[in-house]
Amino acid sequence: MGVLIKGGLVVNADQSQLADVYCEDGKIQAIGQALSVPEGTEVVDAKGQYVMPGGIDPHTHMQLPFMGTVASEDFYTGTAAGLAGGTTMIIDFVIPSPQQPLMEAYHTWREWAEKSAADYSFHVAVTWWDDSVYEDMGKLVNKEGVNSFKHFMAYKNAIMATDETLVNSFNRCLELGAMPTVHAENGELVYHLQQKLLAAGLTGPEAHPLSRPSQVEGEAANRAIRIAQSLGVPLYLVHVSCKEAVDEIARARHEGQRVYGECLAGHLELDDSVYRNPDWGFAAAHVMSPPFRPREHQEVLWKALQGGTLQTTATDHCCFCADQKAAGKDDFSKIPNGTAGVEDRMMVLWDSGVNKGRLTLNEFVAVTSTNSAQIFNLYPQKGHIAVGSDADIVVWDPDKQHTLSTKTHHQNIDFNIFEGRTVTGAPSHTISQGRVVFKDGKLMAEKGAGRYIKRPAFPSVFAAVEKYNAEHKPQAVDR
Amino acid sequence: MGVLIKGGLVVNADQSQLADVYCEDGKIQAIGQALSVPEGTEVVDAKGQYVMPGGIDPHTHMQLPFMGTVASEDFYTGTAAGLAGGTTMIIDFVIPSPQQPLMEAYHTWREWAEKSAADYSFHVAVTWWDDSVYEDMGKLVNKEGVNSFKHFMAYKNAIMATDETLVNSFNRCLELGAMPTVHAENGELVYHLQQKLLAAGLTGPEAHPLSRPSQVEGEAANRAIRIAQSLGVPLYLVHVSCKEAVDEIARARHEGQRVYGECLAGHLELDDSVYRNPDWGFAAAHVMSPPFRPREHQEVLWKALQGGTLQTTATDHCCFCADQKAAGKDDFSKIPNGTAGVEDRMMVLWDSGVNKGRLTLNEFVAVTSTNSAQIFNLYPQKGHIAVGSDADIVVWDPDKQHTLSTKTHHQNIDFNIFEGRTVTGAPSHTISQGRVVFKDGKLMAEKGAGRYIKRPAFPSVFAAVEKYNAEHKPQAVDR
Amino acid sequence: MGVLIKGGLVVNADQSQLADVYCEDGKIQAIGQALSVPEGTEVVDAKGQYVMPGGIDPHTHMQLPFMGTVASEDFYTGTAAGLAGGTTMIIDFVIPSPQQPLMEAYHTWREWAEKSAADYSFHVAVTWWDDSVYEDMGKLVNKEGVNSFKHFMAYKNAIMATDETLVNSFNRCLELGAMPTVHAENGELVYHLQQKLLAAGLTGPEAHPLSRPSQVEGEAANRAIRIAQSLGVPLYLVHVSCKEAVDEIARARHEGQRVYGECLAGHLELDDSVYRNPDWGFAAAHVMSPPFRPREHQEVLWKALQGGTLQTTATDHCCFCADQKAAGKDDFSKIPNGTAGVEDRMMVLWDSGVNKGRLTLNEFVAVTSTNSAQIFNLYPQKGHIAVGSDADIVVWDPDKQHTLSTKTHHQNIDFNIFEGRTVTGAPSHTISQGRVVFKDGKLMAEKGAGRYIKRPAFPSVFAAVEKYNAEHKPQAVDR
Amino acid sequence: MGVLIKGGLVVNADQSQLADVYCEDGKIQAIGQALSVPEGTEVVDAKGQYVMPGGIDPHTHMQLPFMGTVASEDFYTGTAAGLAGGTTMIIDFVIPSPQQPLMEAYHTWREWAEKSAADYSFHVAVTWWDDSVYEDMGKLVNKEGVNSFKHFMAYKNAIMATDETLVNSFNRCLELGAMPTVHAENGELVYHLQQKLLAAGLTGPEAHPLSRPSQVEGEAANRAIRIAQSLGVPLYLVHVSCKEAVDEIARARHEGQRVYGECLAGHLELDDSVYRNPDWGFAAAHVMSPPFRPREHQEVLWKALQGGTLQTTATDHCCFCADQKAAGKDDFSKIPNGTAGVEDRMMVLWDSGVNKGRLTLNEFVAVTSTNSAQIFNLYPQKGHIAVGSDADIVVWDPDKQHTLSTKTHHQNIDFNIFEGRTVTGAPSHTISQGRVVFKDGKLMAEKGAGRYIKRPAFPSVFAAVEKYNAEHKPQAVDR
Repeated sequence: MGVLIKGGLVVNADQSQLADVYCEDGKIQAIGQALSVPEGTEVVDAKGQYVMPGGIDPHTHMQLPFMGTVASEDFYTGTAAGLAGGTTMIIDFVIPSPQQPLMEAYHTWREWAEKSAADYSFHVAVTWWDDSVYEDMGKLVNKEGVNSFKHFMAYKNAIMATDETLVNSFNRCLELGAMPTVHAENGELVYHLQQKLLAAGLTGPEAHPLSRPSQVEGEAANRAIRIAQSLGVPLYLVHVSCKEAVDEIARARHEGQRVYGECLAGHLELDDSVYRNPDWGFAAAHVMSPPFRPREHQEVLWKALQGGTLQTTATDHCCFCADQKAAGKDDFSKIPNGTAGVEDRMMVLWDSGVNKGRLTLNEFVAVTSTNSAQIFNLYPQKGHIAVGSDADIVVWDPDKQHTLSTKTHHQNIDFNIFEGRTVTGAPSHTISQGRVVFKDGKLMAEKGAGRYIKRPAFPSVFAAVEKYNAEHKPQAVDR
Repeated sequence: MGVLIKGGLVVNADQSQLADVYCEDGKIQAIGQALSVPEGTEVVDAKGQYVMPGGIDPHTHMQLPFMGTVASEDFYTGTAAGLAGGTTMIIDFVIPSPQQPLMEAYHTWREWAEKSAADYSFHVAVTWWDDSVYEDMGKLVNKEGVNSFKHFMAYKNAIMATDETLVNSFNRCLELGAMPTVHAENGELVYHLQQKLLAAGLTGPEAHPLSRPSQVEGEAANRAIRIAQSLGVPLYLVHVSCKEAVDEIARARHEGQRVYGECLAGHLELDDSVYRNPDWGFAAAHVMSPPFRPREHQEVLWKALQGGTLQTTATDHCCFCADQKAAGKDDFSKIPNGTAGVEDRMMVLWDSGVNKGRLTLNEFVAVTSTNSAQIFNLYPQKGHIAVGSDADIVVWDPDKQHTLSTKTHHQNIDFNIFEGRTVTGAPSHTISQGRVVFKDGKLMAEKGAGRYIKRPAFPSVFAAVEKYNAEHKPQAVDR
Repeated sequence: MGVLIKGGLVVNADQSQLADVYCEDGKIQAIGQALSVPEGTEVVDAKGQYVMPGGIDPHTHMQLPFMGTVASEDFYTGTAAGLAGGTTMIIDFVIPSPQQPLMEAYHTWREWAEKSAADYSFHVAVTWWDDSVYEDMGKLVNKEGVNSFKHFMAYKNAIMATDETLVNSFNRCLELGAMPTVHAENGELVYHLQQKLLAAGLTGPEAHPLSRPSQVEGEAANRAIRIAQSLGVPLYLVHVSCKEAVDEIARARHEGQRVYGECLAGHLELDDSVYRNPDWGFAAAHVMSPPFRPREHQEVLWKALQGGTLQTTATDHCCFCADQKAAGKDDFSKIPNGTAGVEDRMMVLWDSGVNKGRLTLNEFVAVTSTNSAQIFNLYPQKGHIAVGSDADIVVWDPDKQHTLSTKTHHQNIDFNIFEGRTVTGAPSHTISQGRVVFKDGKLMAEKGAGRYIKRPAFPSVFAAVEKYNAEHKPQAVDR
Repeated sequence: MGVLIKGGLVVNADQSQLADVYCEDGKIQAIGQALSVPEGTEVVDAKGQYVMPGGIDPHTHMQLPFMGTVASEDFYTGTAAGLAGGTTMIIDFVIPSPQQPLMEAYHTWREWAEKSAADYSFHVAVTWWDDSVYEDMGKLVNKEGVNSFKHFMAYKNAIMATDETLVNSFNRCLELGAMPTVHAENGELVYHLQQKLLAAGLTGPEAHPLSRPSQVEGEAANRAIRIAQSLGVPLYLVHVSCKEAVDEIARARHEGQRVYGECLAGHLELDDSVYRNPDWGFAAAHVMSPPFRPREHQEVLWKALQGGTLQTTATDHCCFCADQKAAGKDDFSKIPNGTAGVEDRMMVLWDSGVNKGRLTLNEFVAVTSTNSAQIFNLYPQKGHIAVGSDADIVVWDPDKQHTLSTKTHHQNIDFNIFEGRTVTGAPSHTISQGRVVFKDGKLMAEKGAGRYIKRPAFPSVFAAVEKYNAEHKPQAVDR
């Protein structure tokens, strides 16, 4: 049975038009006025509302084993919560332990993800290097539809990639037509500052941001960008949180380098005063890396989204409840890092972005969905309302008021970093694979309905990059 | 009778797909595989070729009266030449003399343009200020479909707008939802330097670039951007030619300001050595403003196109033949300013852009067509290959070699600034309003077939700007 | 009778050394250990204190006729107050009305200044242009010892210089070896915003900063810099107050241009919240131009001082009492612009600069004295403790606490923008022309003791600039 | 017996004055007009000449064991050559092998240096880390007068310092009041690019610059600066050669960070075309790291010197003759890295700096001598002409023409990178420790006359830095 979305303004990244949208068999079948549809078609009244591509959250960590515990949100609850917030696809991360074969980790994560309620895909982390990693990267790209690899520049003595690993893996990415991505923080400095703070008796969450000040991110961002430049490979920086990193990306893009940046709903809206809250639990609940930043960074991030320096928004959704956070009671460096948001992201972006005149409607779609689809080569299957695209759609009611809270959210965590905030503008309906899964506040997510989405290698930017590299190939002197 | 473009790769700004395109009644009627089309349909074989939106040149001056003469290229010959190069629409300029009513000038230009072979539209220049100008701007926007106004910051004692005029006119643009645009050069400095150079005995064309060095453009760019910022209005800078201006735009965009920049094919490819050519005629033929720049600026412009700091490409097509240029034989400041290129632009952009790996296919479409259509609110009627869009299409043969030259071009001028350059990649067919007007080197332009295209006010960015301005409205203190 | 300053650390811009300093006949006669001095020599015990060049305030307006009133502080009271704060010289401004001959204004100011208690000099403003201005600039430089000219880019319909005047006057400065200086604010924008705010009913002092936002200063700073660059002349920007202007200066200096910047004690320490104070009188007392800025600009200014982007500190000392400020009761644009500080500057700079680790001792001397002396060619007569230099010295007690206040200050104004602030570090003695004029809180200034100090043209930077310009002289092409 | 330098213009960094200078016992004893001097005093006629502080070259490598050979220039020949060029002091480098005790290496170098003809001092390299290194750094500072430590970020598998070593050593420098310095190139990237180029068959010297492109230096510069920022320690970057690194330093200084930069005479004047010279020997003779850069970087360096972003000039004097360079005949990465210049530096700086209007006389003194003396805490013993300073003086004849060449130089190397260049402006006399050692082209250097100069820790900037760090000390939250 099909679904007809009727009377809304269809908003894509490139344009808006009044039109009806008809979905069937998981796909968008028709867009236009007065569509003739089969009898029995479910009709969604979208009058006065916006019909937009479902959100894509390109950065989540469902049920991640991390820092001695496991994230409380699993692939089912997490993707379901996303649907309640208008997000119809996530890209999660396979994170092998050092020395663990990439394929082994990949299969583990694939199995975990089978219960997902919405479509999903995986970046795979490269945390170490040898020939088997080189080989497995090839298998993942050519057989498994992975077209992006993640590198942690932080977390010394754990999953931190050395410069040698970065260089080798970026190089391999270029061969494979896959996008290298980085978590940019200088892990050596973080480690040093952590030890120094602990030695000085600063053991509480207020030490967390002090152990990873913004220049530590700026440094790593620049390092990754310079490595990518030297090798001639595009680069994507996850969770850009500060002026220093934004400036590096802007500079690189200004010089023509193919660099992309993502920012998180949390970093756009919260500042580092949370860590000095007298309530330890409240402060600890905000511990994530990079940390929330002094207020001036928020406006920098917003302006970078407006100006095109950053292209995507995500959440780094990684849930740890109060009892898990308590592991760091006496040592802030042991507090599991992570905050939630997969359900809240689009509402926060709308309320602070569109309502405040920072983003046009089309830009809202671009930064919540389309750009991720294009960068990770899912477009136009995802991120676009067009005939033939997947019927992943959110119907957005610009007048609906909604209060973000643990009391209202579907996320499996006992804390909401936006607790109590009332936004104007929220999903009235979410359609996933052509099925209405969220409607008037009611979530009808189906466990296991989500599909693993393969992403082909060599998105279009690679063709340009290859020509560019060929143009700049070193030449020997004939002597 | 319809036209079927068969077997090509349809390239839009957002994606590429193998598909056939069927045009009829001036519109694109269908896109897909194995389209069923009426008998008698003309078939264009596009196998191995790219099917792209026809180019839009947002900056031309056909038959312009300027510096005591009139540009040799008229609206018919100029638009026809454009079609031969794959450009299916121009936006020209109505330029009232100081004190001349805007509406009067507008009607004069409309009349001149009726002989056009391709669709066209007009920016209108604001060269002076009083209440009638204020009124006429309203009429032009609300009745005549003008949504952009031009301001010359150079040409002292002629059409230069004072800061007072800029402020008033930008303000009016904001009210009307129209885009202010500027020619950014500090006219006072140019005038001063001209007098100084002439006094020093430098009367030849080599003095032209010395009288308007790049900082003179950087200054004016910054001034216009700061005025726009202070008033809360978007801004578009025409023919950005140098690092200084690019840097100002990048800074403004980086800070979230809605600023757009255009560059010319000529500035991307030529440097200022042309002015020191021993042949006076050769040097004079290159006299235009801003002048061609020292070589390092070219790479800056290319990188700004790649990185998104500049969005559009144009030509400032304004033709003066050798006998016209001779007016400045003894005084470089009297050489009529202008060069050609409406026919050459897309081939030059392709050859140096796509072939060298600076631009992806999609970016090529964006910077030659789609972005102009979006900024000037012609999209998706123009700048897009989609059902319902105007059937303005270029079929691009990436292997075709073509030598740019006065011997091969259709432009009505006795000089070609790209003389003798052989490019790889050129139009095999141009379709205008659904009609094949250029095919296998043969031009079949029809005088008067071009239509004046109205452009509605308030492109989507204005909605965001208005909300932003409201958010930042000054507040009185209650005392 | 001489004065021996005994046992202090002599701090110059380039070094510090423990030494005694002996002064006689207005000059420093000896520096060293165990100096043998005439009997009857007055001894100043400087043990544990710093012996530094007396401050130079390069920007004051004593008894200025402005906005329909006259500044309450005259040359005697003002220079005396300076001495109480360790400042032993001021450079004030001759400001001719438009059309008033420069020489006439100059003589008027010279007469007013005869009552000064400390040495002084004059910048002369160029507010209009004709041949007589050109001639008078020559006389002032060659006969009167003026080596700097001021240009107001704000104050439309009053003393604002047009671009044409700027260009002509900067050019003349280059010929004369005199430094052009600018008050950088775009007067056209200020005027426009003032009218708009008044029309919107914002008549209180809170509208003052809104009528001249920081980009308005950034614009003018860039314009002046670009004009100076185009003409090949050095430039000095007075009262740089914001990030935008600092960035322009930094860029220019980074590109090798000879640009200097001054900032005010007030701008370093106060923010624009003062204008929203519910007490109209308090808010109005802070009205000056450029206005105090949002807090983030203060740190930018400090860092620019630290990093060498700004070289000098001043006050723009221009006093209007409450009854004078009241002229703008119903219209903020009529509030006389100006605040005091000639007495407070060095203590504020010390307390926030040296005590907080932003400035070394030597840098403190540089930015309060030496750099002004060098830029305005008074060095080493002023700004240096060396044998042969004028005996203008401050003995600084780093432990002395002092509360800045109308209750304690000697300034002839009923308001102190630093009211109630207690600083650590203050002058114990001030020596002017070899005479102790301030000691243990007691001021012994002598009316008329101050001398007019001639400043020779062509400070050393001009020699380099002339060679540079010659190296870059335009060359004709031989045809 | 004393020396009287008569009739010259004494030029210091802060001022110039016509005066005679009398030297005796290795010190400057008097400066003034008509000095009365002992009979028998040697008189140097300096009429029409400049009397300036002898040059300090803060970056040389005499008789360095490196890459399997030993630099051909020893401490005697090298310092003597320096004297012939007006340079009266060098700061060389002690470079321990990894695992070699610092004190052991230090004593070795001290012994080698005893034959020096001019005064000298040592930076000590930290190439590895353990507790003994920590201890030895303390001894070197507190007992041996070392106040600066060097860190190589390049030369993987040899002397490259890891980030961990950088962090530990910078921290130790802060404790000791010693300046950390870095050779900024990303050694991991260099290694990778070397292998890639060799694998591609590029074995000649043209591959050298390709293996260490400018962004590789920019990356390391930024990394070192960010580490220093995070630890609150000043930083000095040696041989800054490119725009990328200059930009990083400028940014840091603009933000108030205490960062200093040095550039080399070679990088200011030569470009990377030398490496593509068809003569292998010529190309190899230019192999040094960082390599000479594309031409546009030279102007950036000059402007950075003018604008104060860079403070010092040096040579990295490290001589390898043709037979030594031949070690890399088949593999560019084996060519010993190094070029000469200790004798040429000041003449090159004068000719391109002062003669072209880039530097004033005073700035010339600053960048060739005074700034090094101040940064490395030798001032005013060195770098200044003042009573009590060491009598290290160069008398500079601005009209003297001299051709730089292996035929004229005293350097012990068979190549001169400035071969054949005729400069205008050269030393007529060099005075070292009060003795005329170079006169009218005749060198009278004395082996062993040079003294090891101790440099005290805690130059003045450290006092400010310590206050600044205290102001920004992390604070615990009381819970």
